[in-house]
Amino acid sequence: MMDTKQLKISTFNDALNQIEDGMVVGIGSGSTIELLVPKLAEKMNHEQIEITGVCTSNKTAYIAKELGVRVVDVNDVSKIDIAIDGADEVDNHLNLIKGGGGALFREKVIDAMAETFIVLIDESKCVDYLGQTFKLPVEVDKFNWLLVSKKIAAYDNLKVKRRMVDDVPFITDNGNYILDVALHSGIDPYEMHEFLIHLVGVLETGYFIDVTDQVIIGTQNGVRILNKSNDVL
Amino acid sequence: MMDTKQLKISTFNDALNQIEDGMVVGIGSGSTIELLVPKLAEKMNHEQIEITGVCTSNKTAYIAKELGVRVVDVNDVSKIDIAIDGADEVDNHLNLIKGGGGALFREKVIDAMAETFIVLIDESKCVDYLGQTFKLPVEVDKFNWLLVSKKIAAYDNLKVKRRMVDDVPFITDNGNYILDVALHSGIDPYEMHEFLIHLVGVLETGYFIDVTDQVIIGTQNGVRILNKSNDVL
Repeated sequence: MMDTKQLKISTFNDALNQIEDGMVVGIGSGSTIELLVPKLAEKMNHEQIEITGVCTSNKTAYIAKELGVRVVDVNDVSKIDIAIDGADEVDNHLNLIKGGGGALFREKVIDAMAETFIVLIDESKCVDYLGQTFKLPVEVDKFNWLLVSKKIAAYDNLKVKRRMVDDVPFITDNGNYILDVALHSGIDPYEMHEFLIHLVGVLETGYFIDVTDQVIIGTQNGVRILNKSNDVL
Repeated sequence: MMDTKQLKISTFNDALNQIEDGMVVGIGSGSTIELLVPKLAEKMNHEQIEITGVCTSNKTAYIAKELGVRVVDVNDVSKIDIAIDGADEVDNHLNLIKGGGGALFREKVIDAMAETFIVLIDESKCVDYLGQTFKLPVEVDKFNWLLVSKKIAAYDNLKVKRRMVDDVPFITDNGNYILDVALHSGIDPYEMHEFLIHLVGVLETGYFIDVTDQVIIGTQNGVRILNKSNDVL
């Protein structure tokens, strides 16, 4: 019986094998990616290849730089060949909820920009509907966050909480708040996303819809790979 | 022949007459509103009434407080009775372009929230189509501003410039950049707005569509008042 960490690590080879010399690689954030980055650096040393990294969080950028990966600003690249990131939930259309770590905006910029976007998860992240086990994070400007929070709650009698850490509001790398929204099975991700981005003050939502090319899942029975064309978990 | 300043001031009475004791008043930004605030304070003193102000910029909030107006945070009010603001352009459907001063996001929050939104302009701001005399400001996150800028340019071969002040990028009260987009008469404001808000990294656009209740226009031939129901300039 492998634990969650081992399941995550079991997905790394299939992702790293797709990375080639000279590529621009989008490096995500979260516990899975923090385990992946040292393996990426190891691969670079071992195979004597160079890649350029663009990172979705200050933390991942720091870790990557410490390990000798060249990290540049996202505005300094014209394309990203492959982005690799984790996810908090994956549904059977390869749509995701992300943003547990609060870096959802930068993750979305990089993941959506990549030619190929690969998601690494352990099997516990597969869900029947988005919101089943995880709240939807929504990044909002501080200026009118409370009003936005009330409008979201009114959408379908939803519970909305501003994310707190040690009794103070969590602040994203972009200086905004995160609202965590409890969803239910009746909520359509496409409609909800449209509703949210039309609210003045919402920067982005944690829905990642129609952007994932491949999901690599670590399971107790080995690694399962799902490609966009398959479409069903 | 009245100058622009006199034309602006000629609109004030019709706006101020709608403000009553106890109201929550949204106070906009820009040169027109900076002239209006002292008149508002004068009215309060003269008529012995109290209002609560919510302001769309740090500058207007400062001016209002100095003049003894009670100013609160927008999150501390549950509604705004009347918002009064200027505009950079007004078309014949009472749609606006705003954001020359860089406060478009906070202006939109407050103006869109108000029960009644009143726009004060001189006649030079009336246009045949939005973008005729003014560029469309778009507030974007710093993280991927250059990529967003390229995507907007590619929409219809448009010229997009990051706003600069004295050779350094202009920063909004929310810590973001402003892109100024040169439009042409073939661009539909509704479609363009939808395109823009779906770009990851766009916080808001300077289009104010379907939110204005009344436009008060200072002209050389006196004040003209247009109400939403009239719909045509």
